[in-house]
Parts: sequence; structure tokens; C-alpha cells
Amino acid sequence: MKKWNQNLLYTILLLFSSLLPESLSAQKNVPQWGCFETSFTCKTKGNPFTEVSLNATFINNETHDTVRVTGFYDGNDIFKVRFMPQKQGLWTYEIKSSESKLNGRKGSLVCIKPETGNHGMVQVGKSSDFTFSDGGSYYPFGTTAYAWTHMDNGIQNLTLKSLAQSGFNKVRMCIFPKYYALVKEEPASYPYEIKSVTTDSKGEKHYEWDFNRFNPQFFQHLERRILQLDSLGIQADLILFHPYDKGHWGFDAMPMDANIKYIKYVVSRLAPYRNVWWSLANEFDYVKSKTVDNWITLSRTVTTTDPYKHLCSIHGSTACYFDYSLPYFTHTSIQDQAPVSDFGRAATIRNIFKKPVIFDEVCYEGNLPNRWGQLSGEEMLYRIWQGLIAGTYVTHGECFNFSNGNDTIFWAKGGPLRGESWKRIAFTRKLIESLPNSLQLADMSWDNITSTAGPGYYFIYLGKEAPDSWIFNLPTKNANYPKLTAGEKFKVEVIDTWNMTTEVYPAIFETTAQGNYRFVDKEGKKVSLPQKTYLLLRITHAL
Amino acid sequence: MKKWNQNLLYTILLLFSSLLPESLSAQKNVPQWGCFETSFTCKTKGNPFTEVSLNATFINNETHDTVRVTGFYDGNDIFKVRFMPQKQGLWTYEIKSSESKLNGRKGSLVCIKPETGNHGMVQVGKSSDFTFSDGGSYYPFGTTAYAWTHMDNGIQNLTLKSLAQSGFNKVRMCIFPKYYALVKEEPASYPYEIKSVTTDSKGEKHYEWDFNRFNPQFFQHLERRILQLDSLGIQADLILFHPYDKGHWGFDAMPMDANIKYIKYVVSRLAPYRNVWWSLANEFDYVKSKTVDNWITLSRTVTTTDPYKHLCSIHGSTACYFDYSLPYFTHTSIQDQAPVSDFGRAATIRNIFKKPVIFDEVCYEGNLPNRWGQLSGEEMLYRIWQGLIAGTYVTHGECFNFSNGNDTIFWAKGGPLRGESWKRIAFTRKLIESLPNSLQLADMSWDNITSTAGPGYYFIYLGKEAPDSWIFNLPTKNANYPKLTAGEKFKVEVIDTWNMTTEVYPAIFETTAQGNYRFVDKEGKKVSLPQKTYLLLRITHAL
Repeated sequence: MKKWNQNLLYTILLLFSSLLPESLSAQKNVPQWGCFETSFTCKTKGNPFTEVSLNATFINNETHDTVRVTGFYDGNDIFKVRFMPQKQGLWTYEIKSSESKLNGRKGSLVCIKPETGNHGMVQVGKSSDFTFSDGGSYYPFGTTAYAWTHMDNGIQNLTLKSLAQSGFNKVRMCIFPKYYALVKEEPASYPYEIKSVTTDSKGEKHYEWDFNRFNPQFFQHLERRILQLDSLGIQADLILFHPYDKGHWGFDAMPMDANIKYIKYVVSRLAPYRNVWWSLANEFDYVKSKTVDNWITLSRTVTTTDPYKHLCSIHGSTACYFDYSLPYFTHTSIQDQAPVSDFGRAATIRNIFKKPVIFDEVCYEGNLPNRWGQLSGEEMLYRIWQGLIAGTYVTHGECFNFSNGNDTIFWAKGGPLRGESWKRIAFTRKLIESLPNSLQLADMSWDNITSTAGPGYYFIYLGKEAPDSWIFNLPTKNANYPKLTAGEKFKVEVIDTWNMTTEVYPAIFETTAQGNYRFVDKEGKKVSLPQKTYLLLRITHAL
Repeated sequence: MKKWNQNLLYTILLLFSSLLPESLSAQKNVPQWGCFETSFTCKTKGNPFTEVSLNATFINNETHDTVRVTGFYDGNDIFKVRFMPQKQGLWTYEIKSSESKLNGRKGSLVCIKPETGNHGMVQVGKSSDFTFSDGGSYYPFGTTAYAWTHMDNGIQNLTLKSLAQSGFNKVRMCIFPKYYALVKEEPASYPYEIKSVTTDSKGEKHYEWDFNRFNPQFFQHLERRILQLDSLGIQADLILFHPYDKGHWGFDAMPMDANIKYIKYVVSRLAPYRNVWWSLANEFDYVKSKTVDNWITLSRTVTTTDPYKHLCSIHGSTACYFDYSLPYFTHTSIQDQAPVSDFGRAATIRNIFKKPVIFDEVCYEGNLPNRWGQLSGEEMLYRIWQGLIAGTYVTHGECFNFSNGNDTIFWAKGGPLRGESWKRIAFTRKLIESLPNSLQLADMSWDNITSTAGPGYYFIYLGKEAPDSWIFNLPTKNANYPKLTAGEKFKVEVIDTWNMTTEVYPAIFETTAQGNYRFVDKEGKKVSLPQKTYLLLRITHAL
């Protein structure tokens, strides 16, 4: 169908939609990668969560792309079907359901071009990196606020405010509430209906849940927060399971059939939101009720249930690596500070997995007595840069606990950010987002400080060194790009990653070979440096 | 069967073996993990390599263990069947063959206890380490002599002499000859029958091979060398394919069906030798004729054909990691210097793969202009120790090329060893072989220098630092062993890994906690050190 025909058809459809029979009355304009939703009121005799099947097949009338989605029960006799169209044009759908009132219903929607700022889902790119659905680059600058949606609403709004004024574009967050040292708040609602509550001799409540009846309110709240994150351009890295419970609620130790029902319910509700990522677990190995085989089953359930194939990973305790080569995992979500505590390490992880590498926990900036929560801001930012120059990504976290007791400890609860490293994220992100390609070491395993973003574009990170000068020198090898040659002219910018300053060095450098493996300036020129730590050199072709 | 009954039976069988009918006349005494061999003369009409099926099923009369092996054609109308019994006792066998003269033949052997020095095969242990079949520990101290069996016999004998006086217990070696800078010798025989030879305008010979007809002489020679290595206690890490050919012989670019026939022939001949390891390739990614899927097919062919499940891995170019999580690979065989060039790196590789980690190339000690062949002896040994303290293993290699042109360059050709690091291998190996358990970092990702071999047994490697003292301190965490406690008494030995000296430090240290994560001496005592590099501290419980 030609473009003008297509547009004409949409216009006619839109003008006459109010005159169409009921089966088409749900037709809406939905931006590409937006969420289409349709609701049906239907009283059922059995358990509407488990005894009603509901799915819908959406077909793009032009491309014939076909997407089958699962609907869900949202309480108050309301069933919903959600769908994220990934292609523009007219989509029609038909419902299949065990409920005769729902079965056979039909409808359509028109998927229009995405609104400004809507780039679609984040997906895996070609070079162990990420891209948006619209082809734009995505570089993760994440932080951690595990239980932020389970705090009181004032704190939650503060968290959004903190995120809005930061440069973060991803947040790791748990679906289930968290019960752990420093965070024991009860959430306003729970994911399941309560069968019974008993209070033990210590006054602690014990809940018995109905794992066959979800609490829609809990998920409606979560969805609102996910949409708010999206409006801030932030990916919601949703942690499906975690060990921070240990008998308090028991969500870490549900039977496997309940785990699978939970995944299916969550995926049917949340997968149509473009900014969702799946994280099977935080510290999977601390969840004592589940084996590695259980995790594989659960991971497979996520990826086979999700029609959009959102990013998916799993996270272990320190240095506990899941087998990220498994097809369920689009990227790594590692907890390990070792690979980003010094040069020459993180790139190896990228070489091994050949997938995007995220280090989602490398200790936190903070003032806790625990050794994992006492990094300086400088060290946190240093580790982020160690990741970046190796072509990998490091998630921020902070946990400051002040004596007034009012502190919210961002890592757990959200609230205000108290550290120093977060202030550098927007600056760092801008540097990375201006690259022509994602970074990787130019001369793998031989030069651990020189990162390339393509021909004539290098970042050299000096880390904790504070030299008074740097002799202009670059490796001959430039990853898989053409080798560096003699006579190329470069300018050098000296970037202070901590103080966020950029100075163009007043000289032009011209390459000449020094042996087989390096190039230097033909006059042997060097760059004078201010003897500060955490410097970055941006070396680009001089025009 | 009771032991004395069993022994009596063997004795009777042995005494009367000469009186038994032909079908049992091949009966022999074979040590456990030794190689039983039986031969059959049989003229065939078709191609004896490809048109005769031949296999034998061996059954242990007591345990009923059943092993099916494939025989092979050894030239001169002789077919052979080899078998490595892994359990003692009487084994009987029956031949199945497409040749009626061979089909149905039966025989037996008595597997007796292994001779001194025969520990069986090397297999994967419980803790990303290796054990012998008899339960003893095996710690790989390998070197590299890719084409040693293709040199003239004098050089080959020199190589064996070099190995005999070194501490090496593994050698990486290619089955196919090598054609590469610094090594272009033609071997005395080739693995295949020659169809035709043409000489091009440059005088270079071009061979056309019959990939359906192996040259038994070539393999008989290889077998003799493998057995000689075994008599020196050296594992033969056999490289099945390599890229160092590029049209000279064409063994790197045979069709896949020829590759598979080759593997099956090699495995049927060599798998019964206990000291064989399979290395699918050296620098697999430089073999341009084969895809990753091809390598997986070939790896699967090896492991499904080998009835004994010898160790098996594959090796890439620098920082090119195959997916070692695949079930075909028992261990890694990595080429990458990055993980062993400094602290805090190699252990991560072990954490990722959860298999024994061998770095089979981390650059070589030598004097070549190539950057991969110019390590100092100190640096070679340093990298070996970086591997060891992280619970991994590093293969040695040296490539000295002297101006007299007589040099053999051990890494390629074998011959005399010329470097300095090899002289330290026996000393290093003795230190490692005296450990109660294999090493691993005691406090993973937090302390990169302290390695544990169990309760009260630590190695601390100081590498390139040359401090005048070391304050006695150990981590609380001790891998998966019980945590260190207060009041434990230790002695410290100062070991100079380069000069191969060991001194007991004249003090006893007693632990007291310092915070949650470390222990120090209760009086804060330190160890005075000689301000030398490459020191190792052996810290063990004082009696």
C-alpha cells in the first residue's frame, strides 16, 4: 500500500470510528512503542486470575506482523489486554478466551509515529552495546533503589525528583518489597491477597498469601511508577525475585508453580511498557529456595512469555557469575568490583560473553560499616570509568546513613541523593552519548587505557595517576577499525571527570610510527597535564 | 567375587593362557590405565581406512563396566584394536566388523594394578582443578613445542632430554606439521597418503592428499613420542587443528567430512593412551575455513568418539574466548595475557567458567621482535604465579632466536631450552604439589594477593613489590573453608620464587580480629623482608 493511500485510510478510519459497530469502538491512536490497552467487564464464576484464559492476537494489516499477547484480570470484574505496537499502521486484533463474553471480540488500533522522546525499547546492539528500537544508541547509566516503590508516597515522589535532576537513565528496583538491615518498611499494598495474618509472641506479623489471587492495586501502583520513570527517560530494571525476605513475607520461597504464575501475570501486565527490563533476581545465589535449574526454568518462562523480548538478565552475589551465555540472557548483570577496580580487567568479561556487559553492583558510595557500602564518590566514579573505557557499563549506588535517622539511604529506599558521584553522571553521560560508536579497547590485552570509538576517536583514561604530562601516543591497532596510519592529525582535550571541565590542548599532533605497534607525534610532542587524578583525554581528528 | 578368589582366577588364567584356544590367546596382563592392543591381519578389497567397520566391546567381568572402542587400520593389512582399562580385573571383548574374518572374534585381558608412576588419566577435580584417576592431584605446569615431533629425530630427542630435566608435566603440540615464520621444516612423514605433488614456478611443492587414506607411519611415530612423554610424566596436549599452514599443505582447510574422519581415526588410535588431552585447535579463529558451528561439530565429534573422556578444550587468538561453558570442554585453554599480567584478574575467569582454567598462551619468554615473544624470564614466571594464586594455571613458552641460526626456538621446534623461567618450574611445582588442596583466593574480589589451600594454609604473593616488611594480616573469609578465628598460631616462610630459596621467619604469629574482615597478629608483629621482588609468603599453622 502506498503511503498516501495508507494515510487516507487511517484518516477515514479515525473520522468514522464513532459510527463503527462495538467490535471496533476500542480503536485508538497509539504511538509506536506506546501501550494500547482495552478493558472488558465480565463477572466470572471461578477465580478470574487462574480460571480464565485470555489472549489476543494483533495483526498489522500491512506488514502482517502477528503478535500474541496475554491479557490479565485487573480486579472489580475488569479484564484487560495490553499491546505495544512496534510497527506503525493499522493493527486489528481478536480475543480468545475461555469466557464466552470475551471470546471472539475484535478491535483495531492505529499505530502512529512515536512522540518526541519515545525511542522505543532498549535492545542489544551490534557491538556488545545497546540501541533503542529507533536505532539511536543507549548507554546505561543506572542507579539502584531496590525498594523505592514500597516506601511512603512522599518518599517515592522525592525519588522521582532525585532521578529527574540526575543523569541516570536506568534504575534497578524490586517488584517484591524488601526486608533487610536498614530497610524494613511495610509497603502500602502487597502483590497477593492475604488469606490470614497471625502475630507471633514477638509481635511480628505472619502472612498467609493466596498465590492464586494477585492484588491488582499493588501492580497498578507499580505501573504508575514505571510510566513516570519512562517520562523521565529512565529504564525500569525490574527485579523479579530477591532474597531480602527470609520468612518475613515469604515471597522468596514460593512454590515453583506460584513463581511461574507470578512471572506470567507480571509479564502480561508490564511487558507492554517499553522501558521495562527483566532481572530474574538480585543475588540469586542467596535465594536458598531455588536451584540453578529453577532459575533457568524461570528465565525461560520470562523469555517465552514476553512477546517483545525485553532485555533480560540475572544477578548474583559478589563474584558469583551465572552462565550468561545462555540464550535467555541478553546481557550480564554482574555483582563484582574486581573487574572495575583497576585497568585491564573489565574488557575480558566483554570478550568472554560477547554480549553487553553491565556491572550492576561494584560496591556503593556511602558511609556504612559494611565494606560494600563505603566507597568514596571518587572511587564510585572511577569504577564507572573503568567500565566505560573497557566497553562495559557500571551501575551507581549510594547508601549514606546519617545519625539523625531521617536518612532514606537511596540504594534501598530512594529519596534524596546524598553522595558526590551522582552529580557527575549527567556530564559523564554527555561525553559518552557524543561518541560516534560505543567504546572498546583499541588494542585489546596490550593497552588497557586507550579506548576507541572508531577511526580517529579515542578516549584515554588516566585514572588515579596524576602525571605532569602525557607523551602523545596511540596504538597502531584500532579494534576492528582500520589501523592508525602515519600523517593523521589529532587534537587533544583534557577532561577532568571529577570537576567536569574540558580544555582543548593548544597543539595539533601528527602521527608517525614508532615500531610496529605504536604511533607518536612526529615531533615527539607531549600534552602538559595539571597533575590531577581522574583525567580523561579525548583525542579526535583535527579538521 | 572375593579378593583371593579373584586373584586365584587370574593366576589360573595366566598359567593356562598358552593352552587356551585362539580366541583367547591375545589375553595379556595390562596395568590399569595402560594400553591393551590386539592386531588382526586381514586383506580387504576396498579401502581399509574407510570401508571397513571395526569396533570392540570390552566388558569387565566383575563390575560389568562396558566400553565400546573403535579399531583402526594400521597399514600392511593389519587392523588394530586398543583399549585402556580403567578398572582392574578380567575384561573380555568381542569384535564387530564388516569384515567377516574379524567379526565375532573374542578375547580377554587381565587388568592388573598400575605400575609405579602410573596415576591414570588427568581429569577434572571438584574445585576447578585437576586430579589423576587414582585420586592424586595434578597441577598443570605446561610448556609449548608446537611442531617438535616434525623436526629431525636428533632435535626430537633433544626435546625429550630438555623436558626430562625440566619440571614440566604437560606439553602443547600439534598433530599436523606447522608452516609459519621461524618454522617451515617438512616432516619426515605426512598424515595422509600423497595423491600427487606438483612444483610451482617458485619451486614450492604442492601436495594433493588422499583424505581417505591415512599414513600409519606418521601416527606410529606420533604414538612413540606420546609414550615417551608419558614415561617422563608429561601430558600430551594434542592440538588437532591449527592455522599455521595457509595453503602449504592444506591441512587447515580440509572439507568437514575429512575433518571428522581425521578426528575419528586419531581418537581410535590415541585415546587409549592415558596422557592424551584433546585441544581442538590453536588459535581457532585464525583458521579461516571453519566457523564456530564447525568447531562445535568437531568438538562434539571428539567427545562422543572418545570412550574415556579425555580432557578437551579449544584455544583462540589473544583475548578470543570460545564459549567454554559448552559441555564438550572440560577446561579453558585461553590465549590472553591480560588476566595474568596483574593482580585481581585471573580469579574472575575461574568464577565465570567454574571449570579448571588454563591460560595456554600469555606471551612467551624470548628475544623475538614480535611483542608476544619478548618477555623476560622474570615476567614469564610472574605470570605463572599470577595464575597460580588465583587458582588457575599458566603454560610456559619460550622463543629465543640467536644469530648463529642454529637455534631451534623451543616454542616451535623443541630442542634445548634457552630461557631462564623454565629453570624455576620444578621448584614452583614442588611448592604447589605440597599443598593440602588446590589454591583459590581466600577473600574473592576483596583481597587479590592472599590465596588459600585450606584451613591454616595460605600463600601470599607479593609480585613486583619489594617492601621491607609485611604486617602479618589475613582475611577473615577463607573461601568456603571455616572462617579464620582469633588465637590461631602461624609460622611464615619467605620464599624467593626467582632465586628458589625458602627461609622460615623466626617468629610465631597469633591472630586477633581487626574489624570484621581481617585478622592481624595480636602484638601487631610484622615480617621483615629482604626488599626483593617475586616473593611468596607461605603462612601455615604453627604446631
